[in-house]
Amino acid sequence: MNIYRFEDIELGLTESFNVTITADMMDAFKNITGDVNPLHCDKAFSKQEGFRDRVVYGLLTSSFFSTLAGVYLPGEKSLIHEIQFKYKKPVFIGDELTISGTVSEIDDKFKVFTMKVSVINQDNEKVIRGSMRIGFLP
Amino acid sequence: MNIYRFEDIELGLTESFNVTITADMMDAFKNITGDVNPLHCDKAFSKQEGFRDRVVYGLLTSSFFSTLAGVYLPGEKSLIHEIQFKYKKPVFIGDELTISGTVSEIDDKFKVFTMKVSVINQDNEKVIRGSMRIGFLP
Repeated sequence: MNIYRFEDIELGLTESFNVTITADMMDAFKNITGDVNPLHCDKAFSKQEGFRDRVVYGLLTSSFFSTLAGVYLPGEKSLIHEIQFKYKKPVFIGDELTISGTVSEIDDKFKVFTMKVSVINQDNEKVIRGSMRIGFLP
Repeated sequence: MNIYRFEDIELGLTESFNVTITADMMDAFKNITGDVNPLHCDKAFSKQEGFRDRVVYGLLTSSFFSTLAGVYLPGEKSLIHEIQFKYKKPVFIGDELTISGTVSEIDDKFKVFTMKVSVINQDNEKVIRGSMRIGFLP
């Protein structure tokens, strides 16, 4: 686990990691949230709606930004203040995703920073882009 | 499960539901994401940092907005385009949360709407506020 302090944060600093989406993750997310929407739970419904398989919950894919902040950038001292994500393309079970963040703004007064974030799939398509505003534990 | 169509959406339309955060949800979220940050996993660390218990992952609490959109408003036909959340107060295991959304903007051209969303705890404190931009399956 990284332990960046505010003083270590500089513009352009980047961290990323990879993850493959599994059916178990989908089941676990459904169990946590109770989101039984058929686009995520029913392959036949999803095909009928024009998708090749059931679609991964957008908020499940977004959950990996918890790891990006809490483990990678800034790691142990992370306190997420705000998030903003746009969903650009569907994600499917088996997709190999790269979760990335790059520091884009540093606020010395409030000791918070902004990072631009993205999720890119195995076909190099950006499936999520957005930003996170993050502060630090003392 | 609700099945609001675009034509059913009107300003002020509100849906909400309640959920109690459990330790099992925390474990499941950690297993999905790999976020082993000690603020969420280690009570002693969290106390040392000034919290009364380990803090619930912000992205876990946010995950219930998947359910709000996918089951309640608009329900079955939901397609989330964009989310924005601000984390205002910490959430703890055992907290009883109310997840709410109210339609605040309707875009007839693109057939999408915006809802203002919030999570309020058992002490009537707003722990998350934000917005979601949502479209519809055909």
